[in-house]
Amino acid sequence: MSDTVLDITGWTCPAPLRDHPRVVMGHGGGGALSAELVRHVFAPAYGGEVLAGMGDSAAVTLGGARLAFSTDSYVVRPLFFPGGSIGDLAVNGTVNDLAMSGARAAYLSCAFILEEGVETATVARVAEALGAAARAAGVEVATGDTKVVEAGHGDGIYITTAGIGLVPEGVDLRPQRARPGDAVIVSGEIGAHGVAVMSCREGLGFDVETVSDCAPLGGLVEAMLAVTPDLHVLRDPTRGGLAAALGEIAAASGTGVVVDEGRVPVPEPVRNACAVLGLDPFYVANEGKLVAFVPPGDAEAVLEAMRAHPLGRRAAIVGRAVEEHPGMVVARTGLGGTRVLDLPLGEQLPRIC
Amino acid sequence: MSDTVLDITGWTCPAPLRDHPRVVMGHGGGGALSAELVRHVFAPAYGGEVLAGMGDSAAVTLGGARLAFSTDSYVVRPLFFPGGSIGDLAVNGTVNDLAMSGARAAYLSCAFILEEGVETATVARVAEALGAAARAAGVEVATGDTKVVEAGHGDGIYITTAGIGLVPEGVDLRPQRARPGDAVIVSGEIGAHGVAVMSCREGLGFDVETVSDCAPLGGLVEAMLAVTPDLHVLRDPTRGGLAAALGEIAAASGTGVVVDEGRVPVPEPVRNACAVLGLDPFYVANEGKLVAFVPPGDAEAVLEAMRAHPLGRRAAIVGRAVEEHPGMVVARTGLGGTRVLDLPLGEQLPRIC
Repeated sequence: MSDTVLDITGWTCPAPLRDHPRVVMGHGGGGALSAELVRHVFAPAYGGEVLAGMGDSAAVTLGGARLAFSTDSYVVRPLFFPGGSIGDLAVNGTVNDLAMSGARAAYLSCAFILEEGVETATVARVAEALGAAARAAGVEVATGDTKVVEAGHGDGIYITTAGIGLVPEGVDLRPQRARPGDAVIVSGEIGAHGVAVMSCREGLGFDVETVSDCAPLGGLVEAMLAVTPDLHVLRDPTRGGLAAALGEIAAASGTGVVVDEGRVPVPEPVRNACAVLGLDPFYVANEGKLVAFVPPGDAEAVLEAMRAHPLGRRAAIVGRAVEEHPGMVVARTGLGGTRVLDLPLGEQLPRIC
Repeated sequence: MSDTVLDITGWTCPAPLRDHPRVVMGHGGGGALSAELVRHVFAPAYGGEVLAGMGDSAAVTLGGARLAFSTDSYVVRPLFFPGGSIGDLAVNGTVNDLAMSGARAAYLSCAFILEEGVETATVARVAEALGAAARAAGVEVATGDTKVVEAGHGDGIYITTAGIGLVPEGVDLRPQRARPGDAVIVSGEIGAHGVAVMSCREGLGFDVETVSDCAPLGGLVEAMLAVTPDLHVLRDPTRGGLAAALGEIAAASGTGVVVDEGRVPVPEPVRNACAVLGLDPFYVANEGKLVAFVPPGDAEAVLEAMRAHPLGRRAAIVGRAVEEHPGMVVARTGLGGTRVLDLPLGEQLPRIC
């Protein structure tokens, strides 16, 4: 999941806060509207040094230990979708945020907001999925909380997890570290999570054989760091998809990014579903993929290590960081043309995670 | 805030899960119904060793550092009440959970679930209150997230915070450590938070000059630990009030507890409001108080240190742990009689925090 507290330096906010006297769905989409809220509401209110420079998780030091610390709320609808559930997301989303700083998640907190009247068996099924996902990711649920709100003030189950993990010595993964020349690697086929959730939304029902890619990325990241601890940036392209992830990295680092569209693996069912729905796969959410900015000399070796891991078999170098058009992401289309990948305003479909 | 993951050994669950095919408000009240959910739903699903023995926060070790880790969701209604707001609660509730293990909170995560249509200015006011409370508590908001749900699926603003802090050397505060002979100390007047929130609930409107006691207890706990690191138990009597806090300690430790009702400081406006509403002040939530179990030889010195602190001026020894009636809390009434302080089923009034 992408945190709201991003470094938004250099972003042009297309919709100033004063145009939104009330919160709209897009404020939760992880795009430009979310960034507005962080820039004009949360950052001034909280202040703080840690918050200023962060990506998906905060880097903090406590008792001599270098920790990554991250949180996300999960409000996905429906609670169960092809390939996963809100319980799986609540684990993997937070585990992956930690992994993007190189940390292996050690402990999770887990807070439920239940809506009065939700079936107890549904809560139990979600809790079981969450526990199984935690075991699969090698993380322990250490503490929790439960609140209940009246019927009509929730939507069955909302979950908020926070995670902590150790950042290995010598690892410094931050969006700001992207450098011209870096290879841009995507760990596999994009768009599956968003399309899987859309396929079971009321009103959007369509037959598609796509299941969510929801998975914990800690092991894949370890395999990559074993090649070199000097990876520059890792990011999981969740809300806002690959376009938002690349846009945030470009903005934070001030480098330009060029992507060869034809090299980005998009499965046929995702491509077809997006065509029907009028969506762009580059903007569709993923929950088990990462994008990496890797020094050019290490790129092939890192790619090889990724392909040797079950979650990176379809990894591909899809582009590179460049000196030109700083802060901007440009995609080369199949016909030799180019298009700018703007930061999305919100998510194409809300409550995807 | 009391976590749901309590050691519930020895509790008699008055309402087995099968009687509740659907979640009721009481499942979020921090009493016996919440414990049911933990025992029959969350604990079996998560497993884990850390979860098994915990009080308000988990004790974990990471990179050689001994950490306390805790989370709570905040769904209080209304968002602003006499003496505070959901933003203050979201900081102090989690900071206090850490303080109850002796840890000074270092970093907080902060995740908002906003309801579509809530005024942006309201979000900003809450964020400002949260930031100010964090500065007052000496804790840094390090990471965050924002999600938005459709109108009719939230209630303006829900907040979930998680906190981490260092546990000092030699400190081991757990409900299980209560021992017969321990003095039971309450840090001040009880019942203010619950009555303050009730006073502005629709349908309950009544004039009362009570403001919430919402405050960060880290400094008070440091002052107590300076007297002796060997305090046995600290607990903040939030949901379920003093009765629930004492009941949980009695159950976890297997000791009995005797309280002299007349020694428990209850302010006149709280007493009057409770009389009008038919409530028992012992079951009303507090947000800036603690109850301590202290070895008898240290009790007077600890009490003196508490009274020298602004948040402990009205501290009092109100009872003691005993060999008799293990796991049970008995209050001595003014007339020489006794009454059993049962664990509440839920909260007297839901969504108090």
